[in-house]
Amino acid sequence: MSAKPNDLALRERAVKVIPNGMFGHEATHLLPASFPQFFSKAKGAYIWDVDGNRYLDMMCAYGPNLLGYGDERVDAAATRQLALGDTMTGPGAVLVELSETLVSMVSHADWAMVCKNGTDATTMAMTVARAQTGKRRILVADGAYHGAAPWCTPMPGGIVPEERAFISKYAWNDISSLEAAVAEAGDDLAAIFASPFKHDAFQDQTLPDPAYARLARELCDATGAKLIVDDVRAGFRLVRDCSWELVGVRPDLSSWGKSFANGHPISALLGSDSCRVGAEAIYATGSFWFSAVPMAAAIETLRILRESDYLEHMVALGTKLREGLEPVAARHGFSLRQTGPVQMPQILFDEDPDFRIGFAWAEAMLERGVYVHPWHNMFLNAAMTEADIDLLLEAADGALAHVRKSVAALQPHPLLMLMLGAH
Amino acid sequence: MSAKPNDLALRERAVKVIPNGMFGHEATHLLPASFPQFFSKAKGAYIWDVDGNRYLDMMCAYGPNLLGYGDERVDAAATRQLALGDTMTGPGAVLVELSETLVSMVSHADWAMVCKNGTDATTMAMTVARAQTGKRRILVADGAYHGAAPWCTPMPGGIVPEERAFISKYAWNDISSLEAAVAEAGDDLAAIFASPFKHDAFQDQTLPDPAYARLARELCDATGAKLIVDDVRAGFRLVRDCSWELVGVRPDLSSWGKSFANGHPISALLGSDSCRVGAEAIYATGSFWFSAVPMAAAIETLRILRESDYLEHMVALGTKLREGLEPVAARHGFSLRQTGPVQMPQILFDEDPDFRIGFAWAEAMLERGVYVHPWHNMFLNAAMTEADIDLLLEAADGALAHVRKSVAALQPHPLLMLMLGAH
Repeated sequence: MSAKPNDLALRERAVKVIPNGMFGHEATHLLPASFPQFFSKAKGAYIWDVDGNRYLDMMCAYGPNLLGYGDERVDAAATRQLALGDTMTGPGAVLVELSETLVSMVSHADWAMVCKNGTDATTMAMTVARAQTGKRRILVADGAYHGAAPWCTPMPGGIVPEERAFISKYAWNDISSLEAAVAEAGDDLAAIFASPFKHDAFQDQTLPDPAYARLARELCDATGAKLIVDDVRAGFRLVRDCSWELVGVRPDLSSWGKSFANGHPISALLGSDSCRVGAEAIYATGSFWFSAVPMAAAIETLRILRESDYLEHMVALGTKLREGLEPVAARHGFSLRQTGPVQMPQILFDEDPDFRIGFAWAEAMLERGVYVHPWHNMFLNAAMTEADIDLLLEAADGALAHVRKSVAALQPHPLLMLMLGAH
Repeated sequence: MSAKPNDLALRERAVKVIPNGMFGHEATHLLPASFPQFFSKAKGAYIWDVDGNRYLDMMCAYGPNLLGYGDERVDAAATRQLALGDTMTGPGAVLVELSETLVSMVSHADWAMVCKNGTDATTMAMTVARAQTGKRRILVADGAYHGAAPWCTPMPGGIVPEERAFISKYAWNDISSLEAAVAEAGDDLAAIFASPFKHDAFQDQTLPDPAYARLARELCDATGAKLIVDDVRAGFRLVRDCSWELVGVRPDLSSWGKSFANGHPISALLGSDSCRVGAEAIYATGSFWFSAVPMAAAIETLRILRESDYLEHMVALGTKLREGLEPVAARHGFSLRQTGPVQMPQILFDEDPDFRIGFAWAEAMLERGVYVHPWHNMFLNAAMTEADIDLLLEAADGALAHVRKSVAALQPHPLLMLMLGAH
């Protein structure tokens, strides 16, 4: 399976007309060399690379694939809408229907603003909070990803420090750190950003301490600041509502994207009436924000979320995966750290500070038809079956046996070492 | 035609769940009250509102409709790709093919980075220029629209001044103003932004003085700064290349969007090798940037642009419109200012400082089945026919006769007055 001539040929063409040959979160520069960059098709739980190899895809397009690739119910809704109209001189009735649907499903929300990127939604959240409060300071957790705009991109290339004026850091889930950051903001605190759980790359995932979440709410209430939950990555994968309903805390604003149209391009900022004046004061728009096709896809996706057991099914499969993988790893002398919600697993290896074992595992899994990620959280989707998890566990058995044999000879990934060294 | 109960009912629902009932550039708050907010379908040159009224649509979704709504060739390419895969864990071969196509069509471009919003492309242009030059100052023309991110949004709500640090203004097409702004930037000039022609709202459009365009190029060359042409609105409506090929000036970077996939959601930053290092140094991405469906639609759209007379057809119809409308207006005692390229017309009235005549005209045209805009440039598309222009001219005859009769009683639009007063 490892010979990938079509992928190689595309990479050679790509490097001429695309900076670095590929950019953004789907670039494979920080993955094992055998990972394909280009794919020819996707269906259900599976993707096919351009050389015809099929993989059980544990990345789900980094989140958008929630019900399975090419879900026929969702794509039929999209295709029906396309025949009527997509990007028009005004929105369709689907804008109102979708906004009503989101507001009805997300407890804290009284209104919705649709957009295209997750970054659009987080940037609007910041701007709405500032417009609503008249204050400037924004607290974000150290290491949290809230998008790739100048104010939040994790890489500093081309950014001037002034674009991040009034952005301060605190340690996620750390009560004293949050208290100190709020105290330092004084009377200029506009908002606190929080990921619903800690899902930073290269790290174990952490679920929120309810006391931390409640404190964030209380500090916002005490200071007049707004609480923002960034649900772009986790939205509708933990609960059919804002993820912090699980800890009993309602934000003023929440950002959404990735999965709620099952891969069709749409994101959203949801807000409570406590932020409506601010939302009405900002200007944000995009050429395709009012396109009807992704809205029709979202309405159908959300219907399925409400009416099916997609979530319980993913949790059952994720539990089977987590419980099944640990003894497989132990059998080959490896100790795993499987963290976060079972349906969004992060799988790291003990005693693997430079990720060389994780990379070898990912490579050996790929060879066996399972696309796993060595340092980013993964995603289950509702099209997966018990047979798929069995396939994964069987592949893991073979892969870890292989890694065990070669472990002494493993080397860390050179580009990853450069990057981690720079932090 | 003016009773619009379905539109009214949707507005009443929308105001509950959407800030202001609608937001962004397609909101009708600054249009005559009779303008419908919601549309049910679009085909070719026409849109239908939710009450079943059909209009010849001179806004073309504010640009994305280039070949006609629902172009069957483009939508078939999109639908074929959807059946294979859209948003996957990596891009399809269509990413490479599209990047090659854009680079082959746009003379200055050596590489492409696709994205979703026009604002993504302009923001990346700024960031790439800063990364490439190591300098900070960005010059933008006063009044030019480059998107809705904090650094460029025309409305200040929720924005802190620091987000616009190192953004300076100059007067577009004004040689001495540009020279002064460059001199003031000293050795810190990263980039000069230029719209290909002046297409600011509420104003006559202006074509570029070639001496101004050449000076912008020369000043960039002399200082090491990068020249950015923002072709999001005009791209492929003036020429099958970057719009400043018409004045013989090649930028280092150009931003694209709106029309090159005929309404499917995709935008792009194109750059020359003079900016490749900078492009490789930034981090920019989005959940749906690598989705294959809009790329397939773009490849097919660009094929049609190369192989058809879409452009010459639009110019011929635009000329017929401009030449035909002037005597119609004169017949009713009105003097028009029809400015800009004929295929992107701005139509304003002399002696109409508060736009009350323009609003009355737009309302009367709408009543006669033609959707025109009273203060924003309009767009022709390739699906329009001579018969459509004849229909428009006939509608204009009736509309202007109606306006002439009522002109003494016209009042300016109250919200517009508030907004223009605030500037």
